[in-house]
Amino acid sequence: MKKILTLVFVYVSAISVTLAQQKKQLDLDAVTEAHFLKGIQNLQDLVSIPNDSNDPSQLVPNITWCEENLDGRGWNTKRLETGGFPLLFAEKMVPKAKKTVLFYFHIDGQPVDRKRWEQADPYQPTLKKLNDSGKWEAMPMEVLENSYDPEWRIFARSSSDDKGPFAMFLTAWDAMVEHGKMPNYNVKIILDFEEEIGSPYLPESVVKYKDILAADMMLIMDGPRHLSNEPTLSFGARGISQITLTVFGPRAAQHSGHYGNYAPNPAFRLSQLLASMKDDEGRVIIPGFYDGIQLTDAEKAILDRVPDNEADIKRKLGIGATDKVGGTYQESIQYPSLNIRGMASGWVGDEVRTIVPADATAEIDIRLVPESDPERLFALVRKHIEDHGYHVLDRDPTDAERVKYPKLIKWEGSVSYQAFRTPFDSEPGLWLEKAYMRAFGKEPIKIRISGGSLPIAPFVDALQVPAVTVVTVNSDNNQHGPNENIRLGNYKEGIKTALAILTQEL
Amino acid sequence: MKKILTLVFVYVSAISVTLAQQKKQLDLDAVTEAHFLKGIQNLQDLVSIPNDSNDPSQLVPNITWCEENLDGRGWNTKRLETGGFPLLFAEKMVPKAKKTVLFYFHIDGQPVDRKRWEQADPYQPTLKKLNDSGKWEAMPMEVLENSYDPEWRIFARSSSDDKGPFAMFLTAWDAMVEHGKMPNYNVKIILDFEEEIGSPYLPESVVKYKDILAADMMLIMDGPRHLSNEPTLSFGARGISQITLTVFGPRAAQHSGHYGNYAPNPAFRLSQLLASMKDDEGRVIIPGFYDGIQLTDAEKAILDRVPDNEADIKRKLGIGATDKVGGTYQESIQYPSLNIRGMASGWVGDEVRTIVPADATAEIDIRLVPESDPERLFALVRKHIEDHGYHVLDRDPTDAERVKYPKLIKWEGSVSYQAFRTPFDSEPGLWLEKAYMRAFGKEPIKIRISGGSLPIAPFVDALQVPAVTVVTVNSDNNQHGPNENIRLGNYKEGIKTALAILTQEL
Repeated sequence: MKKILTLVFVYVSAISVTLAQQKKQLDLDAVTEAHFLKGIQNLQDLVSIPNDSNDPSQLVPNITWCEENLDGRGWNTKRLETGGFPLLFAEKMVPKAKKTVLFYFHIDGQPVDRKRWEQADPYQPTLKKLNDSGKWEAMPMEVLENSYDPEWRIFARSSSDDKGPFAMFLTAWDAMVEHGKMPNYNVKIILDFEEEIGSPYLPESVVKYKDILAADMMLIMDGPRHLSNEPTLSFGARGISQITLTVFGPRAAQHSGHYGNYAPNPAFRLSQLLASMKDDEGRVIIPGFYDGIQLTDAEKAILDRVPDNEADIKRKLGIGATDKVGGTYQESIQYPSLNIRGMASGWVGDEVRTIVPADATAEIDIRLVPESDPERLFALVRKHIEDHGYHVLDRDPTDAERVKYPKLIKWEGSVSYQAFRTPFDSEPGLWLEKAYMRAFGKEPIKIRISGGSLPIAPFVDALQVPAVTVVTVNSDNNQHGPNENIRLGNYKEGIKTALAILTQEL
Repeated sequence: MKKILTLVFVYVSAISVTLAQQKKQLDLDAVTEAHFLKGIQNLQDLVSIPNDSNDPSQLVPNITWCEENLDGRGWNTKRLETGGFPLLFAEKMVPKAKKTVLFYFHIDGQPVDRKRWEQADPYQPTLKKLNDSGKWEAMPMEVLENSYDPEWRIFARSSSDDKGPFAMFLTAWDAMVEHGKMPNYNVKIILDFEEEIGSPYLPESVVKYKDILAADMMLIMDGPRHLSNEPTLSFGARGISQITLTVFGPRAAQHSGHYGNYAPNPAFRLSQLLASMKDDEGRVIIPGFYDGIQLTDAEKAILDRVPDNEADIKRKLGIGATDKVGGTYQESIQYPSLNIRGMASGWVGDEVRTIVPADATAEIDIRLVPESDPERLFALVRKHIEDHGYHVLDRDPTDAERVKYPKLIKWEGSVSYQAFRTPFDSEPGLWLEKAYMRAFGKEPIKIRISGGSLPIAPFVDALQVPAVTVVTVNSDNNQHGPNENIRLGNYKEGIKTALAILTQEL
């Protein structure tokens, strides 16, 4: 009997320790600091794997790394097959949990234009500090073992977008486990490997796997903090659709001496067409483009609470004036955009040739808000093009069409994903605010909708869950461009943010 | 005495044979036919040497080849040093000659975009015939030894522009010499190795070497025949100048989600600026651009004598309508042009990135006529840009300038060469007509000014000589673009043209 009692006592006391440990609030700052260097190692390991989603062969070692790193931490992982590259799903069920939170990250990155990077290899993470002459100067990674400055940065493709946040999450998870803690909710993770090419198979896959993905809310860890670099939550994201327009000139490029003044120049024609779409202050003048968006005074007041310093933004961007779609930065992103992301005709620079080019191409992206259905916008833009005298094709013209129609254009349009917007006072909004209060001792900046796009609308639609974006990285991270980077201070506070969320009772 | 008489007889008789030989008219067709295959070999040898004038190291084997081939034929050659790659000068003095004719050729070529050529190597001349399905089909060069079709073509960079004509000239020279003939005038040759990069040092070099180059007239063997492919002479050429315009957006490319609708898009701005320069029918609407050009009825009648078939031209170019600068093709090239030869911003196609680009560039070429001084046109275009609110720089902006000026543009302008125009009834005009009558039994088509540019105005100005362009190649030779070629029939008639000119008494 005594033996039994002792055993019971030992058992109860073991439970007590665990409960006590769990009850005790973690010192988020101290725990984060203690795990920072391990976090840097996680980041380095992950960004060292090339991840251009235009090249699926590059994605294979990425998904393998993620599987190994989740399996090794005791998660159940599963590849979800899609029409393209698989999604990776992982889950961690917690006994007695009442709620489930689904985290989203993407592991792929934009292509790299190596000659424009100021380091030998965009996939070789490089620690840099800003030197006295304002240049980023490389340092050996080992200096971090002695001390570091939060202003230093690690440069590598996807350091911010979006491998950095996933590395923060893994680091926070390890820190939590090491301190004997677990979330009081079930955790699911979905990793996307095709975000930078518009997640073409995500919408159908979310529907296909909606039982597996089912959750009470979804947190997207992707994107930068507010420009002030203060802790930020973002409650929505613009959607994105794209159109490639190709205006046709002569069938083959022609000598500009022989046919300049005679063969219509497709670059001029494209310029004239594009110019007709916007006024001198960047507002789209295609009728109906902004229909349905009417910011009320109450909404404008919410937007005004975001502490934007527009003079700073302009200085940072190096611009003397802004487009006038909205009265402020926050207002501007409540509207759909019509952006030329790329344009090409003939050759420029060292390769220039004295020709009338054969064609001219504009790559357009249209960012969407909940009020702007992309098919409606496409129809408006298409009608505008037709009203300018163009015969619109979905392929290159035939010889007969070339001679028949004075103005020919090819239209290739597609919708990647719609916009979403979650109310500030939704369940995730209120819960995350508590986690941020614990981590930072103050309310986060709350963004009504962020300008960038996330493939979240399919989740919102299929799973019927509210979604909030937990943004952590520095806004000047050069994401999508050369010299992408993450600021060490943001990386560390990102670990702390993830740790606060994982340990916040739901 | 008898011995002496015999010697005298032998001597006189030797002279008589030579004189008889010289008096006897050559059968131009038969002689050309007999030398055709040697001519093809000359062409192959020359176009096999890569000759992109952006890479001077490629030019060295070209100038060496030309020296060896002229020295070997008994010409005196001399490199004329310039600020860039040397010119090659050659001369052949003829005893008792009263006149001197200077021939101009260029040996360099445009760059090649290998992936757009339908053959492994643009510097590996490839014989092709049009097959039944309308595709150019390669054949071994050896088939020419049995028979050939004038419609077959040899594809290679510079096959038409302008190594082909120099190979014709060398072939005609050899044919003439083999038949014991010589011109009755002194012949000088100047070879340019920087024509495709605008012959930047030619104007100053012609002044520097004007005593060496002195001549009574200048013949430029470069450029295509009239579209009808009938024998053609061209009495002038438009000049050429160029402007590179760079419109600045944000200092670095920005994520189009975060800054679309806010950071002004340089591609849109460039489009708007370019669009403002022309009307919908391709006419420049910058005031004053066409000043000084008033075609009289007499001039229009001369232009109308050129047998253009505009429906054919449009079909050939694959265009449904033409720009309306002139009422006809010939009229259109009596005016300066404003052509966008290249345009670029951000990335397109597989490399597309969802950004607001940092800048947008337009490469413009302005073709000149004698009435349009390029500096005057530059001033008009520049004022037009300033009137659209741009602050114009000749370099990239500083950070302070970026914030100060809402619209910033970089202007890089240069004049390659002016236009020239020689009267039809000038000495070379009348003399060449006789040579063409001998060769073809009919008057050539006479072009008042050709659309393309030749670096001839510096010669006309410095040497005070009339200049005429002897054009021989097929107009659909794809010069400057991929798949440049020469039609065998044109190559052969080009040899005959050169032979007729070399043997035409002056």
